[in-house]
Order: sequence, then structure tokens, then C-alpha cells
Amino acid sequence: MSEAVAGKTAAIAAVNKAFVEAFKKGDAAGAAAVYTVDAWALPPGSPPVIGRQAIQGIWQGALDGGIKAVELETLELEFQGDAAFEVGQGLLLLANGQVADRAKYIVVWKRENGEWKWHRDIWNTSLPPPA
Amino acid sequence: MSEAVAGKTAAIAAVNKAFVEAFKKGDAAGAAAVYTVDAWALPPGSPPVIGRQAIQGIWQGALDGGIKAVELETLELEFQGDAAFEVGQGLLLLANGQVADRAKYIVVWKRENGEWKWHRDIWNTSLPPPA
Repeated sequence: MSEAVAGKTAAIAAVNKAFVEAFKKGDAAGAAAVYTVDAWALPPGSPPVIGRQAIQGIWQGALDGGIKAVELETLELEFQGDAAFEVGQGLLLLANGQVADRAKYIVVWKRENGEWKWHRDIWNTSLPPPA
Repeated sequence: MSEAVAGKTAAIAAVNKAFVEAFKKGDAAGAAAVYTVDAWALPPGSPPVIGRQAIQGIWQGALDGGIKAVELETLELEFQGDAAFEVGQGLLLLANGQVADRAKYIVVWKRENGEWKWHRDIWNTSLPPPA
């Protein structure tokens, strides 16, 4: 890995950590701050959600619904042109530490004012439907 | 749009059309042919599915489950470095034309032997959960 790529990779890991930390504090605005202002989030069960402000509502809803922590794991990160794409997996955890959902995602990253941000974000569950 | 981008955009539209046409013929192998050999598909309700051969099984399963046609609509297509990313939406249709699912997706495209292919593919439903 070149030094330039190592630096970008570390910057991106720090942003994902900021999301996790904000979530742990119940701070939906902090979580949404990892998105570009004109980001699109594509959550299951809804049309696309456009813009950082609207996306904050998704994460406020998750917090209000009892999700107390998230874990994110990058499986693949590739820099291409002015963007990067990441494939990852994650956990949504309840207050008692139980797993509410096991998910996977793709994030298209862009730089906004020099900082790497989530620009397009889609996820779904990895758990089978209830029997 | 530059001429080069117009050409790439048309090539990608043709690949999406090939997927739709293969599906209409019940041809899961033809549908899977739009993926790179080492593609990852990230379907809801399952861990990642790795490789074109395994991905063919997803689409065979959809055909066996009564899906007779798909429609795809590109909402955004951006070329970055050696890749492209696409955000789109689609319909899964039953034999009687009823909508079985309304979905959205992100595809990371790569060139394989000079041809644009689906390299990473994730989707989820846009429909609310049943009440």
C-alpha cells in the first residue's frame, strides 16, 4: 500500500470510528455528520433518503427504536478517481448487547471540503427472514 | 457529456438491458454473465455471495420463486478511475405483471476483458415492511 493510500485509508477508518462513537453517545447529528451534505442513503423499506439533514432522521429513528451501538467492519476499500468505494459489514446492538441486526453495506465515499464523507450509502440485513 | 463518457454510458446501458433480457427468457446463466467472475452480490437476508457461479444461484432462485421479469432504471452513473458506480431502482414482476418487489441498488462496475460488468452489487426493498 502506498503512503498516499495508507493516509486515505486511515482517514476513512477515522470517519467510520466517528460514526460509531457518535452513535454510542446517542448523537444522531454527529452520526449524520459523516455524510456529504447532498448524500443519498438507501435504507431497506423506504425510498432513497436525500441529504444529510433527512439522513439524520434515519439514525435518530434507530436510536429511538432502541439501537444503542453499531459496529462497522470494512471488508474492502478501493480508491478510484475522486471517489472510493467500501464494502463492509456491521452489527446493530441493543442496550443489553444483543444483536438487533447483522448488516452489510456499500458506501461510495467522496471528499467534501477536503474531508472524506459517505456520499452514497446502502445496506441490508444479512439475517434470514423470520421463519 | 464527453464522447468517451457517452460511449461508456451506452455500453453500461446495454449490459443492464442484457440482464433484463436474459431474465425475461428465464436464463439465470445469461443474467449472471453481466457479473465479473469474482463479483460479490450482497442480497438481503444472506451473507455476501461470492463469484459469478454462486450469484447465478440467486437469480435462478428468483426465477424458481415466480419472478418472471425485472425492470432496471439508472438514477445516477459516475465514472471514477477504472470503475464506475451506479445507483438505480428496479421492479421484480410476477407472471401476471404484479409487482413482487420494488428495489433500489448500488452497483460498482469494473471492466473485465474490456467489457463493463457488475463487480459489486447490493440491493434492498423500497417497500415498507408488511403491517
